Amino acid sequence: MTDASPDTTPATVTAAMLIIGNEILSGRTKDKNVGYIAEELTAMGIRLSEVRVVRDDEAAIIEAVTVLSDRYTYVFTSGGIGPTHDDITADCVAKAFGVPIGHHPEAMAILTKHYEETGNPFTEARKRMARIPEGASLIPNPVSKAPGFQMENVFVMAGIPMIMQVMMDGLAGRLKGGRKMLSATVSCEMGEGQLAEGLGTLQAAHPDVSIGSYPFFVGKRYGTSIVMRSVDEAALASVQDEVRSLMRELGAVPIEGDVRAAS
Amino acid sequence: MTDASPDTTPATVTAAMLIIGNEILSGRTKDKNVGYIAEELTAMGIRLSEVRVVRDDEAAIIEAVTVLSDRYTYVFTSGGIGPTHDDITADCVAKAFGVPIGHHPEAMAILTKHYEETGNPFTEARKRMARIPEGASLIPNPVSKAPGFQMENVFVMAGIPMIMQVMMDGLAGRLKGGRKMLSATVSCEMGEGQLAEGLGTLQAAHPDVSIGSYPFFVGKRYGTSIVMRSVDEAALASVQDEVRSLMRELGAVPIEGDVRAAS
Repeated sequence: MTDASPDTTPATVTAAMLIIGNEILSGRTKDKNVGYIAEELTAMGIRLSEVRVVRDDEAAIIEAVTVLSDRYTYVFTSGGIGPTHDDITADCVAKAFGVPIGHHPEAMAILTKHYEETGNPFTEARKRMARIPEGASLIPNPVSKAPGFQMENVFVMAGIPMIMQVMMDGLAGRLKGGRKMLSATVSCEMGEGQLAEGLGTLQAAHPDVSIGSYPFFVGKRYGTSIVMRSVDEAALASVQDEVRSLMRELGAVPIEGDVRAAS
Repeated sequence: MTDASPDTTPATVTAAMLIIGNEILSGRTKDKNVGYIAEELTAMGIRLSEVRVVRDDEAAIIEAVTVLSDRYTYVFTSGGIGPTHDDITADCVAKAFGVPIGHHPEAMAILTKHYEETGNPFTEARKRMARIPEGASLIPNPVSKAPGFQMENVFVMAGIPMIMQVMMDGLAGRLKGGRKMLSATVSCEMGEGQLAEGLGTLQAAHPDVSIGSYPFFVGKRYGTSIVMRSVDEAALASVQDEVRSLMRELGAVPIEGDVRAAS
């Protein structure tokens, strides 16, 4: 923070995640992608601001892609890029951006080679996985080969977590994070209702630090974890001290770090 | 389906879920509420059509509540109803519906009794948990007492999964499901790219049955689960037969039921 060179890092880089798939909304599949993306983006200084889950429905997907890509720096989608009739994400993204879609030569080459090697037929349906909107660049898929793609600020990835994760890992060089969000947590065995008034005063006095209060119940232990986030290291340290003081004033013992709520 | 009495059940009852909380978007807390709500609603004949996760931000919450309550039969929210400054859900719902908000007498009575019993102080901050928009009815919370509420078609619940679940359980009598969505699954050890063409033809011929295709990788087993959903039992059984036939024609052995994708 005291580096003499000018800081050209943007203050805030935002993102949304769009999960596409009936299976998440029916409860058949439990989403594991939000938690992964949230942690990855936070580590990169990108603020995940919204998540939407929509059905395999053309109008719903197009609307979400359009709204989210207008509103946030980046949009990450998962799901709907396989070979079957319910995999309509690529077509919807093309429509959202008003561009044609066709078989991408590089994607075709990757898949041709993959099916030659595995001895499985490269069916017309599988060729659907090479359909990429015009102007998009590919996102590599070292696991099952069928690539994702980047269309402007929208990154289209697979829904299967292990494939989504490897695609996400391959994106690091393309994403520019903002100032890194720093985080500190102090906990204590006191209900948040007793800390709340003092926390509200602290939050009002320090608008540059986001103060979150999360109750925990771990066995018979009951209390509150206070999570502070800021891009300003000094402001964060100062609020952290004030939170510890508040806890002591109220008769609680500050515990460094997070205590997770039981579910 | 062959009952002689007229069926007055609505064909489609839809719902959205709105998760409110920075902690989900930062990755600190992994959501466990979507999966639970999705399964509960599916069992009640209510189709979960969309999920949104937004930050503890007034404008974002008001916009989501307004859009989702206009668009779907029911909206379920989780998070942001505790005693601290970042718990703003009740105020946002009041603003979304353009109604005043104040301390609800019944909620005050519940909380007064609770804090008398526990011997903890009923602070001003804790009284915030009794703030309920005018015209709303309470949703009981047998776990930690602070109630949720129903404002028109919006059901406001806690974010902590065990509390959200007990609130949801208490709602059963207030929710009217549509025709029950029936589901059947047939799997086989064949990639979905080989089944895809036949499945597409089947889907086109049976628009009243939603056919989803989900690859699985379990150890060295690799294949596809075909999930069929319909409110029409006979149509479902017929498509199920056709899917089995398709698999056999292509040289695969149908396996009854679901095989879950590894993550």
